[in-house]
Amino acid sequence: MFRKEETICAPATSGGGAIAVLRMSGSRSIEICDRIFFPADNRTRFTEQKGYSIVFGEIRSGEDVIDDVLVSIFRVPHSYTGEDSVEISCHASPYIQQKILELLVRFGAVPAQPGEFTQRAFLNGKMDLSQAEAVADLVASESELAHRIAINQMRGAFSDEINILRADLLHFASLIELELDFGEEDVEFADRNKLMEIVDKVLSVSEELTSSFSLGNAVKSGVPVVIAGNPNTGKSTLLNRLLKEERAIVSEIPGTTRDAIEDTVVIDGIQFRFIDTAGLRETGDVIENLGIKKTHEKIGIASIVLLVSDINEGSTRLSQVLIRVRKQTNAEGKKLIILVNKIDNDLYGYQGEFVNNLVLIPGETLLFISAKTGEGIDALKEHLRKSVDSRRLTLENVIITNIRHYEALLQVTDSLRRVKSGLKNGLQEDLIAIDIRQAIHYLGEITGEITNDEILGNIFRNFCIGK
Amino acid sequence: MFRKEETICAPATSGGGAIAVLRMSGSRSIEICDRIFFPADNRTRFTEQKGYSIVFGEIRSGEDVIDDVLVSIFRVPHSYTGEDSVEISCHASPYIQQKILELLVRFGAVPAQPGEFTQRAFLNGKMDLSQAEAVADLVASESELAHRIAINQMRGAFSDEINILRADLLHFASLIELELDFGEEDVEFADRNKLMEIVDKVLSVSEELTSSFSLGNAVKSGVPVVIAGNPNTGKSTLLNRLLKEERAIVSEIPGTTRDAIEDTVVIDGIQFRFIDTAGLRETGDVIENLGIKKTHEKIGIASIVLLVSDINEGSTRLSQVLIRVRKQTNAEGKKLIILVNKIDNDLYGYQGEFVNNLVLIPGETLLFISAKTGEGIDALKEHLRKSVDSRRLTLENVIITNIRHYEALLQVTDSLRRVKSGLKNGLQEDLIAIDIRQAIHYLGEITGEITNDEILGNIFRNFCIGK
Repeated sequence: MFRKEETICAPATSGGGAIAVLRMSGSRSIEICDRIFFPADNRTRFTEQKGYSIVFGEIRSGEDVIDDVLVSIFRVPHSYTGEDSVEISCHASPYIQQKILELLVRFGAVPAQPGEFTQRAFLNGKMDLSQAEAVADLVASESELAHRIAINQMRGAFSDEINILRADLLHFASLIELELDFGEEDVEFADRNKLMEIVDKVLSVSEELTSSFSLGNAVKSGVPVVIAGNPNTGKSTLLNRLLKEERAIVSEIPGTTRDAIEDTVVIDGIQFRFIDTAGLRETGDVIENLGIKKTHEKIGIASIVLLVSDINEGSTRLSQVLIRVRKQTNAEGKKLIILVNKIDNDLYGYQGEFVNNLVLIPGETLLFISAKTGEGIDALKEHLRKSVDSRRLTLENVIITNIRHYEALLQVTDSLRRVKSGLKNGLQEDLIAIDIRQAIHYLGEITGEITNDEILGNIFRNFCIGK
Repeated sequence: MFRKEETICAPATSGGGAIAVLRMSGSRSIEICDRIFFPADNRTRFTEQKGYSIVFGEIRSGEDVIDDVLVSIFRVPHSYTGEDSVEISCHASPYIQQKILELLVRFGAVPAQPGEFTQRAFLNGKMDLSQAEAVADLVASESELAHRIAINQMRGAFSDEINILRADLLHFASLIELELDFGEEDVEFADRNKLMEIVDKVLSVSEELTSSFSLGNAVKSGVPVVIAGNPNTGKSTLLNRLLKEERAIVSEIPGTTRDAIEDTVVIDGIQFRFIDTAGLRETGDVIENLGIKKTHEKIGIASIVLLVSDINEGSTRLSQVLIRVRKQTNAEGKKLIILVNKIDNDLYGYQGEFVNNLVLIPGETLLFISAKTGEGIDALKEHLRKSVDSRRLTLENVIITNIRHYEALLQVTDSLRRVKSGLKNGLQEDLIAIDIRQAIHYLGEITGEITNDEILGNIFRNFCIGK
């Protein structure tokens, strides 16, 4: 798959906007660009420019001027890919972009595959595999938290953690294997307690990382929230209010407004994803149909359930509904936030009645709100924010967001558990060594110390073109 | 409207893609960037970098790293705007872009209005007004021809033409006004024949430019084509074939594929726009309803009419339809291309019958095609291409595509016609001078020699943010 000898080109920006950037990387980049680029100052020799410099001039196709452009030059190894690279900044016309790419191809470049620039950065040792994966996460990040996790990973925090574990296990393996070499003599070089200490340490970190995946995945794709409740309790008014308040902030800076992503809201840096609430709205009487498999499934994939009720329906009606929802949320360890809505129009003064009659169990919260006027919404947001296990969300903690890393770490954990029980039960060194080697192998897969074309293909296929 | 003292910022690329470019211009650009940008090599003093250089480093918000970025520096007057400018090339995450823009604003930049960068380029004398307008056309150009016209205009070909006319008229005005100064003495300094020669020359160029507008406008927005014909003659098969063949070329280079623009096709560098053919398809029997106002209107705004018939329906049926379509196309000077379709399935051998029985009039073409197999489609494309008045489409000719220029040139032409008749009829010099001044005024409006906030506001409001 790796075509090191080729010089690749692709648009790095997407259509629209005022300018577009086309990117080329490979040993012939500067030479190919020189064939079509004519500096405005004709004393400038393009091929002799230093790295990290910019030249203004024209792209020409024969006699025709295609565009006035800025060309940035990067020289091996001081570029993103670690190769000679060129970035052409042109006007964002589809015609111009296509024409320039055609010219680059005509003079010897090949169109880049998705992720091929980052793949080269990996293969040229500019970053390890988990860092390369973080680049794609970084580009996709929509919330502060998703961004923070991605940038930490890109900058090597996760790799450092993995490399420490790997070094510990390599040390362990060398001790065990030394014994194996002298196997006939039945010596024990390594202190069994010392070995157990190493395994325990690595295992505990590995387990912690593994367990961070559900949080990491929620942060990356949005924390799943289901809004449930009887019809006409104000479920969509509530959703609209949450969407509206947060969107207003996003659009403060002209030009950054983007297509609204249906039913996701970033609150205090965390993205929440409201699952198929339209569907819930359509089915109408969700709670009445709670027996239906589909509704169970919806709550099943949620981390948080918002159960909305109308204050004027009284606490008895809510209690009936609550019993059935609670059965699932309690069993599956979901957070349940009970919202008594429409307090702007509390006809019978029922608020006290709710407080007195509802008995909450751990993990549940009762809030009085008005989706219409916005009263109590700040408190709701605060609780949504708190519902996310925030102890882990400090800068120091490494959070797993990538399923490939998660699966590799599950294998590491498995292998290490076998090592541990092997040590306890006095298993033969050669059998323990196999499990240790396996744990080392899976750690190496995460950072790309150990890799193959299939793994690489799977990873970079999901990148966008031009990255 | 012009806020020269402010430093402006905006995204220059649109969402999506791998990287995004944020742009800042104004006297404080480099200083503001320095507050949030930390070069990777900490010996690098960012504010001391030369223009046209690039620095790699981090954008930070307090302690938090927002992104690894490349920053390009441009120094007054050697930038697009003619001011100190900075371009930040970051990962294309919506969160990152917004965060960096927020930081720039926090440290004193203001969000740019649409077109404000180009407006500054104009106000700082980097380009005249018609060149500035060409920038927007260039960004929007989708076909080779639209691109060629826009880039010629951006590079000043049109401005040069206008400036020559203006210089001629200023010379004329100075001669006339010299006479006015000596008005009492009834002298004639200026040779009337010489004056008439100047007016004739300017008038003829002005008329030629004005008349190029319908072509220029067609090239810019696509040459309007209506596909008419009885139901089931293969109109949509024909359109799909035209769309498909040309689109395949566009998508040859991965990454340049973009959302298909409904019903526009670029053939041989010219964009053709098929007007409301879906509507035509829906109404079904278009020709039977030809009396209907709407159908007349559709043909009315088309440059070219494709009249499609089924070879197996015979020439008599076609003749009936033809009479009615021809009434309008002939009267309004449209090109009419008669297509006899389905020749892959010529059941009765009618082809000769069509050739013998149909009498064409000038401006009409008869072609035998199969939309299904593609036979005859190349000939059709050739005729579509030729239907566009291509004599004008040489590099040397200036084509008007902008309605503002068109309207100004209509005023110029009007004024000059009055001057001409005034000269013929021995009108008083002071009255002639008024018309000449008016012509000069309107020419000046085109290039922006004469302008006001309203004109500027109208022009730049239609630009995209970041340009």
